[in-house]
Amino acid sequence: MFIRNAWYVAAWSAEVVADRPFARTLLEEPVVLFRDPQGRAHALADRCPHRFAPLHKGDVRDGTVGCAYHGLRFDGTGRCTLNPHGDGRIPEAARVRSYPVLERYGAIWIWMGEPARAEGAPAALPDFSFVDPEHNEVSTGYLLTHAHYQLSADNLLDLSHFQYLHPDTLGSPAIAGDPGRFSESGETVRSHRRTEAEQLPSFIARAFGVPDGMCVDRRFEVRWDPPGLMAIDIRVAPTGVTYGRESRSAHLLTPETSASTHYFFAFGLPKTLGPAARTLVDYALAGLVTPFRNEDLPMLEAQQAALGDSGFWERQPVLLPIDGGAIRARRIMERKLAEEAQCSNA
Amino acid sequence: MFIRNAWYVAAWSAEVVADRPFARTLLEEPVVLFRDPQGRAHALADRCPHRFAPLHKGDVRDGTVGCAYHGLRFDGTGRCTLNPHGDGRIPEAARVRSYPVLERYGAIWIWMGEPARAEGAPAALPDFSFVDPEHNEVSTGYLLTHAHYQLSADNLLDLSHFQYLHPDTLGSPAIAGDPGRFSESGETVRSHRRTEAEQLPSFIARAFGVPDGMCVDRRFEVRWDPPGLMAIDIRVAPTGVTYGRESRSAHLLTPETSASTHYFFAFGLPKTLGPAARTLVDYALAGLVTPFRNEDLPMLEAQQAALGDSGFWERQPVLLPIDGGAIRARRIMERKLAEEAQCSNA
Amino acid sequence: MFIRNAWYVAAWSAEVVADRPFARTLLEEPVVLFRDPQGRAHALADRCPHRFAPLHKGDVRDGTVGCAYHGLRFDGTGRCTLNPHGDGRIPEAARVRSYPVLERYGAIWIWMGEPARAEGAPAALPDFSFVDPEHNEVSTGYLLTHAHYQLSADNLLDLSHFQYLHPDTLGSPAIAGDPGRFSESGETVRSHRRTEAEQLPSFIARAFGVPDGMCVDRRFEVRWDPPGLMAIDIRVAPTGVTYGRESRSAHLLTPETSASTHYFFAFGLPKTLGPAARTLVDYALAGLVTPFRNEDLPMLEAQQAALGDSGFWERQPVLLPIDGGAIRARRIMERKLAEEAQCSNA
Ligand code: FES
Ligand code: FES
Ligand code: FES
Repeated sequence: MFIRNAWYVAAWSAEVVADRPFARTLLEEPVVLFRDPQGRAHALADRCPHRFAPLHKGDVRDGTVGCAYHGLRFDGTGRCTLNPHGDGRIPEAARVRSYPVLERYGAIWIWMGEPARAEGAPAALPDFSFVDPEHNEVSTGYLLTHAHYQLSADNLLDLSHFQYLHPDTLGSPAIAGDPGRFSESGETVRSHRRTEAEQLPSFIARAFGVPDGMCVDRRFEVRWDPPGLMAIDIRVAPTGVTYGRESRSAHLLTPETSASTHYFFAFGLPKTLGPAARTLVDYALAGLVTPFRNEDLPMLEAQQAALGDSGFWERQPVLLPIDGGAIRARRIMERKLAEEAQCSNA
Repeated sequence: MFIRNAWYVAAWSAEVVADRPFARTLLEEPVVLFRDPQGRAHALADRCPHRFAPLHKGDVRDGTVGCAYHGLRFDGTGRCTLNPHGDGRIPEAARVRSYPVLERYGAIWIWMGEPARAEGAPAALPDFSFVDPEHNEVSTGYLLTHAHYQLSADNLLDLSHFQYLHPDTLGSPAIAGDPGRFSESGETVRSHRRTEAEQLPSFIARAFGVPDGMCVDRRFEVRWDPPGLMAIDIRVAPTGVTYGRESRSAHLLTPETSASTHYFFAFGLPKTLGPAARTLVDYALAGLVTPFRNEDLPMLEAQQAALGDSGFWERQPVLLPIDGGAIRARRIMERKLAEEAQCSNA
Repeated sequence: MFIRNAWYVAAWSAEVVADRPFARTLLEEPVVLFRDPQGRAHALADRCPHRFAPLHKGDVRDGTVGCAYHGLRFDGTGRCTLNPHGDGRIPEAARVRSYPVLERYGAIWIWMGEPARAEGAPAALPDFSFVDPEHNEVSTGYLLTHAHYQLSADNLLDLSHFQYLHPDTLGSPAIAGDPGRFSESGETVRSHRRTEAEQLPSFIARAFGVPDGMCVDRRFEVRWDPPGLMAIDIRVAPTGVTYGRESRSAHLLTPETSASTHYFFAFGLPKTLGPAARTLVDYALAGLVTPFRNEDLPMLEAQQAALGDSGFWERQPVLLPIDGGAIRARRIMERKLAEEAQCSNA
């Protein structure tokens, strides 16, 4: 079960180019994305209403996508615009479901619930302006994880795992000392963590331009909004100094299925920082991808395998203080799922 | 669900050679085919009644197939003829199901329903004498398609897809102009289509010996009989001339499972045409295999994936005039399936 | 369904080394094995109670296994001994299931039923002292078979298949002559078989040091105890002589799942035989692995495929005299399974 009345990232903007259909399964539905001649993105169910051919096998022309099997064409609203056969009449039923989309923060967002409810929603998107390519140097990444998206949210809401799962890259003995603090405001969950007078692992030190051996304090803030929109803010300052360098990253989770997740991530720094911004975001992104792919991803998939078809709570997980953020996020999701279920029953 | 009281192609005759068992799953049942010393083909359930070893792992000798596990032997009627152990007594229950078979038109046909009903049936086979190797040069092919066999019948009953799915080989803008005409007689469905004054794609032109640039008319006739026995007849003549060259091919569909199909196909031309016949049928077959494997087959598999476990009608396909043949064939199949279901309940 | 109150082989002793966790799925449960500093083996459920990470991804230190995700540590009893986060408090629920284990005959044995019932049980293990490495030269092997373990027991309880399945290595026309004799005592089944005045296949002749062309008698004894603990004893003597050379092997079957089996096998000869013992057990083992892997294993997997989800009896196997041992063993297993089901319902 997924929350449907919510904006999900369907793709990074750069993934959907002119004149080429782009396919991705979202919330267990095959979707095709394409752009019209004005560059506006559109999203349709990736299934021709004639004989179910996937529309992404076809071509894009003049704002329409053409089916590769018998050539019907559909515009961004899902209306059939061409039947090339015989007298060319277009049956009323020749329509494809279209989904509201929105382009913001360098991503194409999709609304897979009731279209009418999408209207007022864009304003409600959490702030990810720090990865908006208009004003920032941004480095983006994407990975498909074969695990429920909430396991990825758990992972990011509790960075204590750095020390155990990533001992050679992100880990630092100072992290375990602080079990974290958590806060909730509206539907936003925040998890905070601090280290003091620590020597950074060298990958991290370099990412923040900290000289080897310098003692620093770190402050982590992880922000989560439903259905899985996360920002991680890390500040590093020489011990005792209150203001230092900052790293901000977006971590956007979209379920592919109930056991697999599209993980979109990005680092951004203001263009006003000059050419160093580009170097730093690329360095940070490259540095994240390796431990994520080699360490987090297999762990998430092993958790999913261990869960099998059971729900998370059925397995009776032991709760530790470090889980405060993850549990708050899970509770909010459960409440929202229950609300949607009730509405659609009403 | 499959129609059981019908002849299906189990194999091309040449696939089943002397002294070697040949295994194929048909209608979800594993079957072993072999020949006796007189060359007659036999078909048995491919499962030893002793400990379920597949009989096709064994050997063929003197018209019997021997089990590779403990050596029981069975003849073409399914009777156990040898227990090599101890006193050699053969238990009454040591029997394998045998299926009626028939060899005709270069193929071994199998009857997987009530054996008693197979008797009068051979005469009812539709005519495929144009691929009978006795009087014809024949070129045969086989492909396994991971899609329901009725999707392949749809595909062949509506050749309008040539233009969209096979633009570089079989397609021609003239095809879409004619939505086709359809007729039904008994359980036979025919779909007709015409082009006029078209310039043929070069592969097709060469197959019919038409000089480059010549204007021709084409006449297509697709004939379908249950459960999936199809003939395609294409005639090409210079525009305005009534008689021209002809290409005849057989397309025989046998379900492996409800989501996969054995596709047997062949081109035949009378031996009386001399050595050119051989060249032409080989050329036509080679020319068909490439677009089928690279274009039709992935499309059929994508349709199957889109259908998933749903039935065809559940997905509410949009009907177009071009579907007239395919829909007629589906209705006949549904009627026959319902009849068999009723009989076996009665 | 598995018998749970029984000792199963979890691993050969040498598979579980110091300071490294060893994972294996047994009776459909993921298990992690490790050794404490005294070398004692321990077995825990391979699933961290915090977030279900597999414990085998972690490290072993001072008799505890540490979780690779957030660093909780557990000792051999399944008790959590360290929470490295914050104030370090350990929740009461932070426990892993531990399984009784036993090290004997060069193997680690596990008890996956009620722990209390494991106490008196070690004494009940059938005798496999001939593969105890203390007094014997032993050569061990392991193969994973994708088939129900009872199919492997059937296979070994009826060696008549040698002649058909292994014609080039173990087969000999003399074997089929004797359908075998079977006996039952307590829960032990024995199957006996004899050949007389046979010429051995050359691999076997060499294994027993028999000169080429010599006429020998063979005596086979296969011993089976639940849940799948088997010993095969083969004696070879020149025809007419009562005492000859002997080969003893252990064949220990542990279900991985209901359709896959850990097959542990070993040959042993007393160290008192001198250096020849080592050569002979290695030769025998190597000679067994090849036909097993290339001939038995594909046959067992084909049987499993033929069974599908059906039970063995549902498929109505034909019974032959050669099946006397296998059927007795199946009956005992069915009785024991029914008893356990009754107890756990009571
Ligand atoms: S399947 Fe799309 S036009 Fe026929
Ligand atoms: S399984 Fe065929 S003879 Fe035993
Ligand atoms: S999952 Fe094992 S310590 Fe968290």
